[in-house]
Amino acid sequence: MNSKPPRPILTVGSMAFDSVRTPSGRADHVLGGSANYFSLAASLFTPVKIVAVVGEDFPKAHLQFLHEKNIDVSGVQIAAGKTFHWVGEYDTNLNEATTLATALNVFEHFDPKLPSTHTSCPIVFLANIDPVLQQQVLNQVKGHELVACDSMNFWITGKPEELKKTLKQVDILSINEKEAFLLSDEKSLEKAAKKIQAMGPSNIIIKRGEYGSALFTPSGIFLAPAFLVDQVIDPTGAGDSFAGALMGYLAENGANRTLMKNDPKAWDQLMRRAIMYGTVMASFTIQDFSIGRLKTLTREEVMLRKEHLLKMTSIGAF
Amino acid sequence: MNSKPPRPILTVGSMAFDSVRTPSGRADHVLGGSANYFSLAASLFTPVKIVAVVGEDFPKAHLQFLHEKNIDVSGVQIAAGKTFHWVGEYDTNLNEATTLATALNVFEHFDPKLPSTHTSCPIVFLANIDPVLQQQVLNQVKGHELVACDSMNFWITGKPEELKKTLKQVDILSINEKEAFLLSDEKSLEKAAKKIQAMGPSNIIIKRGEYGSALFTPSGIFLAPAFLVDQVIDPTGAGDSFAGALMGYLAENGANRTLMKNDPKAWDQLMRRAIMYGTVMASFTIQDFSIGRLKTLTREEVMLRKEHLLKMTSIGAF
Repeated sequence: MNSKPPRPILTVGSMAFDSVRTPSGRADHVLGGSANYFSLAASLFTPVKIVAVVGEDFPKAHLQFLHEKNIDVSGVQIAAGKTFHWVGEYDTNLNEATTLATALNVFEHFDPKLPSTHTSCPIVFLANIDPVLQQQVLNQVKGHELVACDSMNFWITGKPEELKKTLKQVDILSINEKEAFLLSDEKSLEKAAKKIQAMGPSNIIIKRGEYGSALFTPSGIFLAPAFLVDQVIDPTGAGDSFAGALMGYLAENGANRTLMKNDPKAWDQLMRRAIMYGTVMASFTIQDFSIGRLKTLTREEVMLRKEHLLKMTSIGAF
Repeated sequence: MNSKPPRPILTVGSMAFDSVRTPSGRADHVLGGSANYFSLAASLFTPVKIVAVVGEDFPKAHLQFLHEKNIDVSGVQIAAGKTFHWVGEYDTNLNEATTLATALNVFEHFDPKLPSTHTSCPIVFLANIDPVLQQQVLNQVKGHELVACDSMNFWITGKPEELKKTLKQVDILSINEKEAFLLSDEKSLEKAAKKIQAMGPSNIIIKRGEYGSALFTPSGIFLAPAFLVDQVIDPTGAGDSFAGALMGYLAENGANRTLMKNDPKAWDQLMRRAIMYGTVMASFTIQDFSIGRLKTLTREEVMLRKEHLLKMTSIGAF
């Protein structure tokens, strides 16, 4: 931690109810959504401002809970109707969810408008939503210093041109392995990453589920394993909380586009460390259904597991 | 390298013809077999002695080639009949081979007898063969200092009691992820490793194909990614050449059971480094069919790629 004023992150994403079945059990109509996972993870490092929409059925107590966690929910619209609801399941291959049903509800007519308190956030994370909405949000933020986004097969195949417009404006793309191959039409990680870098984002994080992640920066490649957990209860939110810790750490440690361009080595180092925090955060998230584990997680627990992970990946002097 | 006399490795395994189809193409009746892959990899570090059987159709020129590579083939029996022949294929999931046919041929009546020049090798590697044969070989070696073995689902389900007898006698087990779960009846890596450690081998290497490997020693856990290659031509032999470099490095650097017991920290460090060499070797193997790449591979190329891999896994001071 440093003594500089905190740099808040603006994120746009979903606030949802999830009904999910995994080999460990099931959870019905529990709190979920990318903005929820992202903001709880990031808030352990820096303040977060959420832009999202919920229905009248969304618990006010949860918004209050987020507020107490240093998460600004004044940009969360409460619209007439029901909250977005996702129904999905995971089989023994916990790396991939099968969507059984999606009720967009109030999300269908989501028109993100940023309060004036939100338009000068230095760091922006565009969670996995319609790339048109991603651009709409980003265009309202003035003077941003660092922008990251997530996406998925649905947008890669459904709105490729709009997604490419978003990609031109972002510095960091977080995406899973299959989607990286789909987006790049390549079959090797390194070739895929290079092709996607040419689309805009100088930094590509390719998520490999239980096997970790691969990071491609302008000056290096970093391969990180996942932390070993005894039992994966529910993989939902792993990617969003990974991104939350990553962006939170970057915000806390002064990362911006200028550093990336002027000192690619220092930037690369910072990104590697951020990946470790993302890895640790994801490992906590999957140890409970919904945001169960994130709600009680402390910074101290994160630090402890980060040390544990470092021991598991350290090769020592060679 | 140190100036002490080299410590040779004795290995027992298959010398075979392989016919293999992968998404990159096919190779018919090419040289293969665990002993071939293992010894070529290990010989970049230390002398190797092979115990195996081939048929009269096996090319003498290849035995001569191995001999020139510091691999002692005087323990390779040439029996009346044909050499072991494996026919297999890989689909887009390159982590797993499908066996289409196996012609054991001379391997069916293989009765490993060690020449007197072979019975005092300090290091032993029992490649993936019938655990009865593994024990038969090991029982002929006097005063061994370090023993490793490999196995597979076929023996785990087919000869579980014999396999357990072998496991009681080995220090290092190398096995793939699915087989580790099968052998331990566990679903998490760490639990599986602990259960298998209790069966005998203090060190478990769990191979995860394109995602790398996990090492469990008496004093630590090490997670290593695989090296990124542009194209996997043929995964055959990746595990055996991984083991070859690992054991070769351990042999060259004085690793033995005594060090493991007396200085578990130093042992753990040595194992982590050995894993890096195994990782590098496997990445070369899969870049060509058969032993194509291993035949020309130099120690310098291995060292160069090891440096490259270290850069991909280093997190720096934190």
